[in-house]
Order: sequence, then C-alpha cells, then structure tokens
Amino acid sequence: MKDHVYKILELVGSSDQSIEAAIQNAIARAKATIRDMRWFEVIQTRGHIENGTVHSYQVTLKVGFTLETS
Amino acid sequence: MKDHVYKILELVGSSDQSIEAAIQNAIARAKATIRDMRWFEVIQTRGHIENGTVHSYQVTLKVGFTLETS
Amino acid sequence: MKDHVYKILELVGSSDQSIEAAIQNAIARAKATIRDMRWFEVIQTRGHIENGTVHSYQVTLKVGFTLETS
Amino acid sequence: MKDHVYKILELVGSSDQSIEAAIQNAIARAKATIRDMRWFEVIQTRGHIENGTVHSYQVTLKVGFTLETS
Amino acid sequence: MKDHVYKILELVGSSDQSIEAAIQNAIARAKATIRDMRWFEVIQTRGHIENGTVHSYQVTLKVGFTLETS
Amino acid sequence: MKDHVYKILELVGSSDQSIEAAIQNAIARAKATIRDMRWFEVIQTRGHIENGTVHSYQVTLKVGFTLETS
Amino acid sequence: MKDHVYKILELVGSSDQSIEAAIQNAIARAKATIRDMRWFEVIQTRGHIENGTVHSYQVTLKVGFTLETS
Amino acid sequence: MKDHVYKILELVGSSDQSIEAAIQNAIARAKATIRDMRWFEVIQTRGHIENGTVHSYQVTLKVGFTLETS
Amino acid sequence: MKDHVYKILELVGSSDQSIEAAIQNAIARAKATIRDMRWFEVIQTRGHIENGTVHSYQVTLKVGFTLETS
Amino acid sequence: MKDHVYKILELVGSSDQSIEAAIQNAIARAKATIRDMRWFEVIQTRGHIENGTVHSYQVTLKVGFTLETS
Amino acid sequence: MKDHVYKILELVGSSDQSIEAAIQNAIARAKATIRDMRWFEVIQTRGHIENGTVHSYQVTLKVGFTLETS
Amino acid sequence: MKDHVYKILELVGSSDQSIEAAIQNAIARAKATIRDMRWFEVIQTRGHIENGTVHSYQVTLKVGFTLETS
Repeated sequence: MKDHVYKILELVGSSDQSIEAAIQNAIARAKATIRDMRWFEVIQTRGHIENGTVHSYQVTLKVGFTLETS
Repeated sequence: MKDHVYKILELVGSSDQSIEAAIQNAIARAKATIRDMRWFEVIQTRGHIENGTVHSYQVTLKVGFTLETS
Repeated sequence: MKDHVYKILELVGSSDQSIEAAIQNAIARAKATIRDMRWFEVIQTRGHIENGTVHSYQVTLKVGFTLETS
Repeated sequence: MKDHVYKILELVGSSDQSIEAAIQNAIARAKATIRDMRWFEVIQTRGHIENGTVHSYQVTLKVGFTLETS
Repeated sequence: MKDHVYKILELVGSSDQSIEAAIQNAIARAKATIRDMRWFEVIQTRGHIENGTVHSYQVTLKVGFTLETS
Repeated sequence: MKDHVYKILELVGSSDQSIEAAIQNAIARAKATIRDMRWFEVIQTRGHIENGTVHSYQVTLKVGFTLETS
Repeated sequence: MKDHVYKILELVGSSDQSIEAAIQNAIARAKATIRDMRWFEVIQTRGHIENGTVHSYQVTLKVGFTLETS
Repeated sequence: MKDHVYKILELVGSSDQSIEAAIQNAIARAKATIRDMRWFEVIQTRGHIENGTVHSYQVTLKVGFTLETS
Repeated sequence: MKDHVYKILELVGSSDQSIEAAIQNAIARAKATIRDMRWFEVIQTRGHIENGTVHSYQVTLKVGFTLETS
Repeated sequence: MKDHVYKILELVGSSDQSIEAAIQNAIARAKATIRDMRWFEVIQTRGHIENGTVHSYQVTLKVGFTLETS
Repeated sequence: MKDHVYKILELVGSSDQSIEAAIQNAIARAKATIRDMRWFEVIQTRGHIENGTVHSYQVTLKVGFTLETS
Repeated sequence: MKDHVYKILELVGSSDQSIEAAIQNAIARAKATIRDMRWFEVIQTRGHIENGTVHSYQVTLKVGFTLETS
C-alpha cells in the first residue's frame, strides 16, 4: 500500500457558472479516459470577460491518478 | 489582428456572498470607465472575519483590456 | 490602536459543497478556541476525487487574529 | 460597506535616507492625484551604490485605493 | 536627483515575428500617451498556436516611467 | 463554446539559432501527435555552452490543446 | 546539541514609527508567552495609509523558538 | 468524514545523520504534545557546516493534524 | 544533436524507506512505458504520518525524456 | 555604453541597529575588494533574537558590479 | 564522471540588438576568466527605454562551470 | 560579534549514492579554496537517469561563509 506511484496531469476546465463547475467539467471530461483519479490542486483561476461581465471561468488543475501496476 | 496591445489593471473586489460575486463586483465597477475588458486572472483570495464567520470575500484580480489604436 | 500584534494560524477546511463552505468550516471550527479572528487568506485549493467526480474541496487558509494584551 | 472595489497601483519611491523615507516619498507624490489611498505592500527593495556606499534606496510598492462610486 | 518617483504599468504586446518585436510593439503603443518611460521587465512570455505553428508571441511587461513633479 | 476542456503538456525544445526557433521546434515536433494546440507559455529558458559560446538554447514550454469531445 | 527541534510562529507586528519598531513590537508581545525565541524572518511588509501619509507599518514575521525537551 | 478540519504547524528538525532523520526528529518531538498528525511537507532543507564538512541537516516542515471536534 | 525535443512528465513516487527510494520507485514504474528518460527534478517532498512516525515519503518529480523522431 | 556586463554577488550583512545599517555594512565590507559596485537588491531580511529582543538584523543582498573590460 | 562539482555565477549581459545577443555578450565576457562553462539559465529579462523605444536588453543569467579538481 | 559579513556561493554537487552525498561532495570540493564555510541551503534537487534508473543526484546549494576582515 505504501509504494503507489501517481501521475499528474494538468487540465483547464471552464464554465460560465462558477469556479467549482469549471473544476468539475475538467474532471468529468478526463474521466472518459483516465481511471483512478485521486486528487486535484487548483493552479490558476482565470476567465473571459465579454461586455463588461464574466463570460466564463477557466480553472487550471493538476490532477493525480494512480498508475496501475502492469 | 496579431499585434494587439493590452493593458493590465489590478483590482480588488469584495462580496459577502461568494468568490465569484467578488470577481463580478470588481469587473462591474471597472466597466464604468474601461471599455474592451478581455480577461481576468485571480491573484489572491482573502476575506474579513467578524464574530467567527466570514464577513466578506476579497479577491485581487488582474484585468486585461485592449488598448485602442489612437 | 496602531500597535496591535496579530498571530497567524494555518488551517485546512473541507466541504463537499463548495470552496466557500470549506473556508467557513475551517473558521467555524477555529472559533471554538480562538477569539478575535480578523482576516483569512487562501493559500491553496485542493480536493479529493472519487469515481470521477469531486468528492470534497480542501482549502488551506492563513487566519489572522488579534493577540490580546495580557 | 462590504462591496467596496479597490484599485492597486505599482510605484517606486526613492530616498537617500531610509527605506521608510522611500515609501513615504512614493505615497506623498501619489497623493497629488489619488484620493483615498488605503494600504501599501512592499514588493521589492533595491538601491544604487556610488563609491562603495549606498547612494539611494528604491522601494517598489503596491498601493490600494478605494474606487469611488460614480 | 535622488528622490524620483516612478509608476509601473503592466502591458501585453504581441507580434508574429519575435519576442523582441512583441516588446517593442507594447512600448511603441504606450509611447502615444506616456512620456519618460525608463525601463521594462519581462513578466511572462506566451503565444498563440495555429495549425501547429507559432501564430504570435505575447509578452507581458512591466514598464516604469518617471512621475513628473507637478 | 464556453465549456471547453484543455490539456497542458510540458515540452523542451532546443535550437542553436534563437529562443524563438527553440519554441517552434518543440511545437513542430508535438504537431506530429497532437491536434488542436492553442497556446504556449515559456516556463524556463536555458542553454548549453561550448568553448565559451552559446551552443544551443533550451526552452521549456507549457502547451495547451483542446480535448475533443469523444 | 545537534538535534534541537524548533517551532515557527507567524506574527504581524505594527508600528507608526518604522519597520524595525514593528518587528520589535511583535517580538516583545510574543515574549510574554514564548521562551527561547531564536530568530525571525520578514515575510511581508505592508502598511496603512491615512490622509495620504503612512499611518502604520505592518510586518509579517516567522519567529523560530526552541522546543524544550519535556 | 468529508468535513474534517486540519491545523498546520511549522517545525524545524535537525540531525547529523540524514535529511530523513531530521524529519523524523521533528515529528517525534511534536508527538509529545500533538495527537493525530497526518502528513508533512518539506519547506526548506538547510544545514550547518563545521571544518568543511556537514555538521547537521536542518529541515523545515509543515505538519498537518486533525482538529478533534470538541 | 542540437535540436532534440523532450517531454516532461510529473510523477509522485512513494517509499517507507527514504526520499531516494521514493524517487527510484517513481522512475522504475515509469520505465515500463517510457523509453529514453534523461533527467528528473524534485518538485515537492511530502509524506504520511501514522502513530507519530513517518509512514511514507512522497516525492513529486518532473521527469524529462527524449521524443523520438517519427 | 550599451554592452556592459555586470556580475552579481550575494552577501549577508548584519547590524544591531537597523536594516539600513546591515545593508551598508555588507557593502562597506565588499568595497575592500570590489570596485564599481552599482546596485543592490534585498533578497531576505532575517535576524537573531536574544532574551526576547532583536539582537541583530541580517540582510541578504544581491550586489551588481561592472566587469571591467580586460 | 558522476561526482563533478559545478559553481554557478550570476551575470547580467546587455545588447541593443536582441535577447540572444545580451546572453552571448555576458558569456563572451566571462570566457576571459572562466574555463569550462557548461550551461546557463535566464533569470530575468529587463531593458532600458529611451525616447519611447527599446534602447537595450539586459538579461540576468546563471552560468554553471566545472570546478577542476586541484 | 554582531556585524559579521557573509558571502554566499552557489554550487552543484553530484553523487550516485544519495542526496546527502551530493551535498557533501560539493562542500568537500569547496573546502579546498574557501575557509570558514558556515551553512548551506538546498536550492534544487535534480538528477540524471540512465537505462531507467537513477544514475546520479545533482543538488544545487547556496553556501555561506564568513568574510574575514582584511
């Protein structure tokens, strides 16, 4: 149990609703190809502005997942 | 289209509701004097505490806007 | 009034709802033993993932409080 | 009171006397055009050397001021 | 001569030619409204990619200029 | 259009000509296997020295590309 | 002598006189409850502005002290 | 299980043997007064030199522990 | 020889023995799928604590490998 | 005049009086062997505490000086 | 071959032509007194502005060279 | 005793055995020309990989030593 190896991906998710939704969109999209995601860390929070209001949040994440032993 | 020049402002917005509302309050206030805001980046998230609960969120932003050619 | 001294604690709060709720959970828990908390600063936003969705947000905070004169 | 918006300027003040005087020179100069300055943060402390002694201190500051509601 | 005060602007210049041209484009555009620019510092170098080649360089600069005594 | 998810790769390109050529070499090589690259950010600029002159520039890049919906 | 363990506190001291006085005020206040303080490191220097002049310096410190063997 | 709150301490451990022993000395000393330590993070690795050899390693750690619900 | 392109992976290795063993476990696991690994850089050193002693070291690495020309 | 080359030294000066005196002590000592020092930048401000008061300030500086053409 | 020791110098080179020329000027000047330079890393890119155009680029480098066994 | 001035060198030591041995190799080599080394700080830990195993550790250190009064 002690000697797991994890790999870390860097993703950017976006949402016009909230920072949390941008995080969840990135992880939901990654779920299609990556099993065993374990944690994330927010690296940067940015967004686009249109007509003087926030048009979308863009959150850059590091996502860690377990490398299965082959 | 390739040679745009942008200027970056640093603003602090606050809200007693959420981090997103603090971001939007800063951008809404800046809209009064700045046209063509294009993106923001969250630099710092702080807040005030009163009586042991969050009283307000304060979010420091960099906001980029297009410099119009004169 | 000018010569206050503050102490800064570092806490990690978590929530399965939102980043704001994770901040508030940390501060509510600290309230049990610390009087006169004045401000917080978000140092890091992380979270756990289970079955490809966000299971909880974990927010690391610095919290400043007034040291009462003894 | 909770939803103030602040703008942050970056200034460099200098003095041949002390770091504190360099800070005060920058703020005194900014006072001519900016009302409602509220706080500063020191970003960098540099200086010039002439003939093997400190000739001047140069302090880079961020200065926050309240944006008045128009 | 020792007690100058400088103000620092943050700009983003872009060019499809080179990093140096992106820097110069930002400074040339700022020249229209700012006198007495003295130095710059590169904060970030980014760019856009189209069809698998670099389409433009985007360089974020801090630019310092002398505040004239009023 | 608002809910795109991007993935970020980290690459090192090198060139004996210029920093720009090192960036372009990295992106040209990545083009062979990655579609829809959108932006890059320079993380570090290093190089090798031989016989007291620059032998090559090595530029570390983050490269963002769109994850296609499957 | 080689295997000492130290604990590090984070404090904010303030003064309307100087950066050094803000440091000393924080340490003098901590002295009431902490024995064996050994070193400090300045983490951040901020201050409040009132009526266009520096009203107080606020210095954030890390302070290390020896944990006595129990 | 999701809403735990953790507190983070900063400690410096030292050892004349190895970096790992310095970490373990800090944690062993903290164990005397802190229950439920869960993780550590190395912040800085320093050391003292005497007569041209390493005399001791000094490792600064952040240590997280569970705040028990009162 | 001058125009190599490298790709950088981010991995987390763990070990209950030492920091070096955690590094080697990560690289040994990556060897199963990646040829031509050339260098690593330690990004973060963390660990788990159980019953007041270090239970495992967790080391986050960047690992660079040569992209073969296709 | 444009193609000067500078070398940067890192020094630590100390003083029991002030941060400025610690800077000046470092530069005065370096003057004995280095001609043409031009600027300094403060990298870190630390100090020693004895009996609950500041015993000395220790300031780490980078100092730039002109390399004379040989 | 494995146990080389390197020393790292910090230099600032300047040029009115390009960032690459500023790097090369620094290394060419250092070549006069240092043998066996092996690599460089760019730490900062700055420059002087005169009359609203870039007058010179100033690049701060770390340069590593092999310490010969005596 | 309070007004010592220290100089800081940056060195890279390497070893195929351990991080600690890489530190000691750097300091042992520097001992040949530098008296009165007092402390070190680890700046970066890297290494070379050959055939999928760690071939050597490379540790970048800052090393402080007392400047003797001339």
